[in-house]
Amino acid sequence: MVDADDEHFHDECGVVGVFGHPEAANLTYLGLYALQHRGQESAGIVSADQGQLYTQRGMGRVAEVFGAQELERLPGQQAIGHVRYSTAGGSVLRNTQPIFINYRHGAFAVGHNGNLVNAGALREQLEREGAIFHTDMDTEVIVHLLARVPGQDAGERLAAALAQVSGAYSLVCLTETRLIGVRDPMGFRPLVLGRLIDSGGFVLASETCALDLMGAEFVRDVAPGEMVIISQGGIESRFPFPAVGRRMCVFEYIYFARPDSVLDGVHVYSARKRIGRILARIHPRDADVVVPVPDSGVAAAMGYAEASGLPFELGLIRNHYVGRTFIQPAQRGRDFSVKVKLNAQPEILKGKRVILVDDSIVRGTTSAKIVHLIRAAGAREVHFLVSSPPTIGPCYYGIDTPDRAQLIAAQHSVDEVRKMIGADSLGYLSLDALFEAVGGRALGFCDACFSDDYPLPTPEGHGTRQLFLMKELR
Amino acid sequence: MVDADDEHFHDECGVVGVFGHPEAANLTYLGLYALQHRGQESAGIVSADQGQLYTQRGMGRVAEVFGAQELERLPGQQAIGHVRYSTAGGSVLRNTQPIFINYRHGAFAVGHNGNLVNAGALREQLEREGAIFHTDMDTEVIVHLLARVPGQDAGERLAAALAQVSGAYSLVCLTETRLIGVRDPMGFRPLVLGRLIDSGGFVLASETCALDLMGAEFVRDVAPGEMVIISQGGIESRFPFPAVGRRMCVFEYIYFARPDSVLDGVHVYSARKRIGRILARIHPRDADVVVPVPDSGVAAAMGYAEASGLPFELGLIRNHYVGRTFIQPAQRGRDFSVKVKLNAQPEILKGKRVILVDDSIVRGTTSAKIVHLIRAAGAREVHFLVSSPPTIGPCYYGIDTPDRAQLIAAQHSVDEVRKMIGADSLGYLSLDALFEAVGGRALGFCDACFSDDYPLPTPEGHGTRQLFLMKELR
Amino acid sequence: MVDADDEHFHDECGVVGVFGHPEAANLTYLGLYALQHRGQESAGIVSADQGQLYTQRGMGRVAEVFGAQELERLPGQQAIGHVRYSTAGGSVLRNTQPIFINYRHGAFAVGHNGNLVNAGALREQLEREGAIFHTDMDTEVIVHLLARVPGQDAGERLAAALAQVSGAYSLVCLTETRLIGVRDPMGFRPLVLGRLIDSGGFVLASETCALDLMGAEFVRDVAPGEMVIISQGGIESRFPFPAVGRRMCVFEYIYFARPDSVLDGVHVYSARKRIGRILARIHPRDADVVVPVPDSGVAAAMGYAEASGLPFELGLIRNHYVGRTFIQPAQRGRDFSVKVKLNAQPEILKGKRVILVDDSIVRGTTSAKIVHLIRAAGAREVHFLVSSPPTIGPCYYGIDTPDRAQLIAAQHSVDEVRKMIGADSLGYLSLDALFEAVGGRALGFCDACFSDDYPLPTPEGHGTRQLFLMKELR
Amino acid sequence: MVDADDEHFHDECGVVGVFGHPEAANLTYLGLYALQHRGQESAGIVSADQGQLYTQRGMGRVAEVFGAQELERLPGQQAIGHVRYSTAGGSVLRNTQPIFINYRHGAFAVGHNGNLVNAGALREQLEREGAIFHTDMDTEVIVHLLARVPGQDAGERLAAALAQVSGAYSLVCLTETRLIGVRDPMGFRPLVLGRLIDSGGFVLASETCALDLMGAEFVRDVAPGEMVIISQGGIESRFPFPAVGRRMCVFEYIYFARPDSVLDGVHVYSARKRIGRILARIHPRDADVVVPVPDSGVAAAMGYAEASGLPFELGLIRNHYVGRTFIQPAQRGRDFSVKVKLNAQPEILKGKRVILVDDSIVRGTTSAKIVHLIRAAGAREVHFLVSSPPTIGPCYYGIDTPDRAQLIAAQHSVDEVRKMIGADSLGYLSLDALFEAVGGRALGFCDACFSDDYPLPTPEGHGTRQLFLMKELR
Repeated sequence: MVDADDEHFHDECGVVGVFGHPEAANLTYLGLYALQHRGQESAGIVSADQGQLYTQRGMGRVAEVFGAQELERLPGQQAIGHVRYSTAGGSVLRNTQPIFINYRHGAFAVGHNGNLVNAGALREQLEREGAIFHTDMDTEVIVHLLARVPGQDAGERLAAALAQVSGAYSLVCLTETRLIGVRDPMGFRPLVLGRLIDSGGFVLASETCALDLMGAEFVRDVAPGEMVIISQGGIESRFPFPAVGRRMCVFEYIYFARPDSVLDGVHVYSARKRIGRILARIHPRDADVVVPVPDSGVAAAMGYAEASGLPFELGLIRNHYVGRTFIQPAQRGRDFSVKVKLNAQPEILKGKRVILVDDSIVRGTTSAKIVHLIRAAGAREVHFLVSSPPTIGPCYYGIDTPDRAQLIAAQHSVDEVRKMIGADSLGYLSLDALFEAVGGRALGFCDACFSDDYPLPTPEGHGTRQLFLMKELR
Repeated sequence: MVDADDEHFHDECGVVGVFGHPEAANLTYLGLYALQHRGQESAGIVSADQGQLYTQRGMGRVAEVFGAQELERLPGQQAIGHVRYSTAGGSVLRNTQPIFINYRHGAFAVGHNGNLVNAGALREQLEREGAIFHTDMDTEVIVHLLARVPGQDAGERLAAALAQVSGAYSLVCLTETRLIGVRDPMGFRPLVLGRLIDSGGFVLASETCALDLMGAEFVRDVAPGEMVIISQGGIESRFPFPAVGRRMCVFEYIYFARPDSVLDGVHVYSARKRIGRILARIHPRDADVVVPVPDSGVAAAMGYAEASGLPFELGLIRNHYVGRTFIQPAQRGRDFSVKVKLNAQPEILKGKRVILVDDSIVRGTTSAKIVHLIRAAGAREVHFLVSSPPTIGPCYYGIDTPDRAQLIAAQHSVDEVRKMIGADSLGYLSLDALFEAVGGRALGFCDACFSDDYPLPTPEGHGTRQLFLMKELR
Repeated sequence: MVDADDEHFHDECGVVGVFGHPEAANLTYLGLYALQHRGQESAGIVSADQGQLYTQRGMGRVAEVFGAQELERLPGQQAIGHVRYSTAGGSVLRNTQPIFINYRHGAFAVGHNGNLVNAGALREQLEREGAIFHTDMDTEVIVHLLARVPGQDAGERLAAALAQVSGAYSLVCLTETRLIGVRDPMGFRPLVLGRLIDSGGFVLASETCALDLMGAEFVRDVAPGEMVIISQGGIESRFPFPAVGRRMCVFEYIYFARPDSVLDGVHVYSARKRIGRILARIHPRDADVVVPVPDSGVAAAMGYAEASGLPFELGLIRNHYVGRTFIQPAQRGRDFSVKVKLNAQPEILKGKRVILVDDSIVRGTTSAKIVHLIRAAGAREVHFLVSSPPTIGPCYYGIDTPDRAQLIAAQHSVDEVRKMIGADSLGYLSLDALFEAVGGRALGFCDACFSDDYPLPTPEGHGTRQLFLMKELR
Repeated sequence: MVDADDEHFHDECGVVGVFGHPEAANLTYLGLYALQHRGQESAGIVSADQGQLYTQRGMGRVAEVFGAQELERLPGQQAIGHVRYSTAGGSVLRNTQPIFINYRHGAFAVGHNGNLVNAGALREQLEREGAIFHTDMDTEVIVHLLARVPGQDAGERLAAALAQVSGAYSLVCLTETRLIGVRDPMGFRPLVLGRLIDSGGFVLASETCALDLMGAEFVRDVAPGEMVIISQGGIESRFPFPAVGRRMCVFEYIYFARPDSVLDGVHVYSARKRIGRILARIHPRDADVVVPVPDSGVAAAMGYAEASGLPFELGLIRNHYVGRTFIQPAQRGRDFSVKVKLNAQPEILKGKRVILVDDSIVRGTTSAKIVHLIRAAGAREVHFLVSSPPTIGPCYYGIDTPDRAQLIAAQHSVDEVRKMIGADSLGYLSLDALFEAVGGRALGFCDACFSDDYPLPTPEGHGTRQLFLMKELR
């Protein structure tokens, strides 16, 4: 893996919720910190104290948005938080979460990981009825529905609103007195429930790595289609939607999730090592050294090295100080996008037959540059192994992906891709092997980006990003 | 007059609109600059270009909010702008104007000078129907109504929306193709129409002083109850509301408007000098010198001096560098609120019987400090003359005023006020004399703050500022 | 007068010092506030507490540079402060004052009003000896000399350093234990000593208006050539330089100083009114109305009106919200530099023969625009009267002036100037009349800008601003 | 390794120089980017163009300080740059480099990696002669000396100045026409010379990893005691100091340098792997898994695993989004300093006998927390192996180290340290083994922090940081 801004699919969000801790906003901050890999564009927290909600949001990473001052402005024992992925165009303060409204039933805040596939149609209908939208985010549809539906309590109203939407959503919601977590019926995105060791309060988070930092024990995954309502009275679990079968995103295991997380019972780091071992079995190579593209290819490369008996070496060194703000110098005819992040070591690579392991190939341009780097450092052969199947379709369920036309594997055969990236050989993981590594196909996964098998109807002809681009962009 | 933050009623807004000029945003900027006295809290401009609207808003004065970069982001030949008064509490970016929405009929922006008296009730009803409010401003009610009413064109829909509201409003509105100006049926707040000398385009503005700077000829005042719709086809004038008689705010002439403006045919500077002359007639004093409280008392003091034959002297010197940001030093037992703005000159005042002219007395505390300054500089007698009648009632039609309980003249007799401010004598203008100076009572004025005669029903028990204070702030 | 950035000579600094008050920095802040008219480019304060000096400096006005936080970082009972004029080019943080150094005798800070005429030569010599300069300011020469001269105490060393410099300087200096004020032997720039009413401590300031706001009684002017050393032991007065006769800048009375200040015994406002009265005597005109260019022409116009019996009217209204940040809109072929500040009132001027009073004409361009504004408002005749003699020479003693080539009166006859500014007649004050108004020539004034009689040798061929322009900027 | 702010020795600087490239500042920016690990407090670049020097400096990382705008302000074909380590106290803009002066011979800029041991005495003497210091940096002594010494050219003068200083310095210097690199006679800090592949120009840099990113071929290391003067005429090499024998800092190989750099002929990554192999030989353990403390322990752990045959696992996952700005939440009784950076994986560690490899133990507190994390994740045994000898002395030659009193190995036996960090066993590298891994003792190393054998006299009783703490801070 190289960097968030070019050659990867990107998760669009991470969510956190805390109920029943005197420093709820501080804990939420820690949780978001642990989930920073799920989104670096913006961060926000809403807390509840004595019948009032307080909010702080801003552009940038968690540590940039929140200082001591901001956290002090978030009193109370309940809070939710959200981190959002940095997209190229629509990155404006207006489009940060949690969304926070005041409506006739009081205050309501929501943080959303996922994407709704019928948001466009719902928005048109709501606008015909007089609704005024203030953001480009599909999530805003949910609050407009919420302001219109009947219901005895916030949970009922939220269920009634969600009954009208279709798509992927793991939600954390906050009212004056309740923390609510919801996972869509297919459970595309993860959501876990934990218990705070010191206060006995509860937390929700996208991944277990957030629980670890917040000082919370893992209790269980929120189930697909489940709504958990946490209040002073305890935890209530509801299943307001018809059961349709789990379709958890398999790409979470390949790249999105942090290696130390356990999602729906599967430990991510171990899954990646298993993938590497399988790769060694299905793509054996006569080679001298196994080299990962750091950091995302490391675990699979270790698995490959172990299974093959070949030495594992850090032939590419990553500069961890590379941030969002790097400005490509205006050098004539030179491209630093990869070099600034990765440096190839001739001392390791010279004269070697190199197995290079990366987690995926999206457009192919970055992979080609990396292969070039390896060769320029003196490698004799470069065998490119990918720890996922060919990515042939865009995602409509909460992942930022290029159009199909830009997906190299959707347009070209494996051998064509090999030539385009300049490798001596190229090997992908098979879909069966992938399922083997993550616990078996029977668990229920969404593999649409590999199989073109979309579990929910998709908008025609364009990806998720275009759905809500309003004309006005500040 | 001393400063915007203590001893004055304050206008809450100024508005500008431009149609048909290649540098519409630049002209709007100039117009807002000329109207800066009507509001220094925030400023905003929305422009229209080729079917799209662009917006820039920010906290602070016009010159702080808009630089070359911001103006470049506002393309097109149409624009509206707004400046807002700096209130103590609810001063947040959220509450800036123009309000800008995208709704089913496209884009719509509105800038509002005035205050609606039934906004609270309308908001409650709209929320019951599912509307979500995003600001504390009464103006937001108008756009929610607009998104719901039927109508063939923007003008019809706007009229249908305004038919449901009651109160004071001079509006400038912008759609993709039209500039619309509306003045409420009573015409509480001013609104004038001008023609650009160079391009032949049209402008709207709260006062004529804005026309002068924008390079526009005065065409006419927008009439109470009139809607002017300016498009490529020209100007259309509609009168969608029943006629109820003009009730223009008389305080505009006393203090709010710039002296060089002409409002509904009356030149402000001349009116203020007439007031001074009348004061000399009804409150003659044995005195040595006439001294204004700068800057607002200057014209009336000049009129008094001319009529009385007494010398006019600048016995108080104003520091014009005093800005919003002055920080009262933490000096024990000392108060700099007045001293930092005004310095009394012993060389002028020592041993003199001084006639001090100010435009109004609100709480009385600042007046007392000024009298004290004059005496400390050696004046033998201080005769305080006020160029308006006693202010006994709060305003509900767009002016920021303290509660009645804080209005010294509502709670005390003239002689009590005289004692409280420490003057040797105190004289107010009479209501009849005021009408004489501004053209005669028959023209139709709102004088509720002097007479307690409110032309429209008012919310019970509280002033305008509380109407929309939501719990959540920031 | 229009604005600091075009048509005026400009004072380059104001200084303040406080000794013996628990809130010394706060008082210094107030003093600088009152002296803001002497410089708006930058502001700085250095305080002394328990043997240490603390400093805060920044670009912008006093209220922009200092908030509660900055003032809290300036502990102690002693402080000095400085405001600096906003020059076009060299306006950078590096060039702010007070200059603060640590040298072998401890800490030393100095704020300087004036300009040294031999700074260039001294700098060259010091650099030859190994000195490294860090600013473009002539004042830095003083601290390098100070670090090299012998002397028993700070006062002796400072006198030894100043013995080597030639030029104009009113200095406030701070060591760990002393506040020192110095006025150069000719006393070009003012400096006054005051006593704090509450604490009994002492203050120094450029003008008495600062004393008024700081709550200090005027004690006396610091004499030309005097050094006052204020310590726990009291005030010590030294005269370390040979006596050469006072040459106080006469322009301070015409324009620079605040009208409510008293400088070397002369009340500025009264002097300006006297100037107006004399103008009426030497330049009588058949006219209908006397109109000042606000604010600087107001007092003289009042004097003219009183002496002539003609009515005084505010025919030009000034927009006091015009700040440094106004951005001239990119309007084709239009110039807003004057219009944005001044609006002419046709209601006052139409058909009238107008006497227009301004304090000076520098380049003539702004004067021409103002005459044009008056005529465009309908005036029949415009008689331009100037409350100073023709300005024919640049200043080398602390005032920012254009080169002689740009001074219209240095290049053209009075009648040529009249034609160039478009006036029907033009009258200047005579030099004799000026001295009459400020107390008599015998008091000793510098009038070099009017008379070309320079009391100290000047650098050849260029004005003060070029002296220290180093190549490196920022 | 955990983070720059607690448990490590820290390099204080990195330097870069470019001569003869049309985009010199851009290249310098890239070089600093690659050296970001050597200092994150501040960054600065000075460029030379047509006889003038231009400078941009700021607090923060390279990408924070430099955007497109800043780089555009640095024209010319020559430039030098500097990154500085973030120290706790004296982190202020004043103390950024390169230092840039104008003196009698023109402009001169210098960036310094290292520390001078006689700077305090030199400073006192220079101040007695009238020098005024503006920073707390020892480097400023060099420019004051430079301004005083004789010499025919910049090289001679610089040599004369450096002849008076003692200590560690790798310098890059820029005049209007020359780029000069100097390495002190003992060569404590690295400095390499490279040639630009496209332009044929030359570069200097602290490490070869900077050359790789700048597109430069490695030419050679600058020799201890060598001065290279690069001008239009080519490269001139001088040796102005007596030869004393190389004493290159051995810690550069253990931790400071980037693994992909080659310093004085030794490849860092390979040296670290060799260290791991040697550790396996001298500290064999009955264990199940080898786990590095990421990132600094990774290479040694890999070497250990290879030599021992034990599996290598990432049992600690590092959060790479941890930045300087993390704010420790105010949680009662909890410490997040380590947890926020490292998460232990129970899936890997549970029930295991773990060999934990880190590069050094400084105070011991962080090591104890890491051991605790490993045990909390279920490890049965924790064997802590350190890839360096015990650190018993502070550094006076350019590295930021705690006082000897805080170095746990200086105060305690190995077994005491073991108990204090809670490990089952603890093994350090021996000094002989260290020299074996880096090429042999005969090459000449400074190992003072391990051996207490200081090659140059050190200031008594305190570390480098106190040398230049002036009283005045900011």
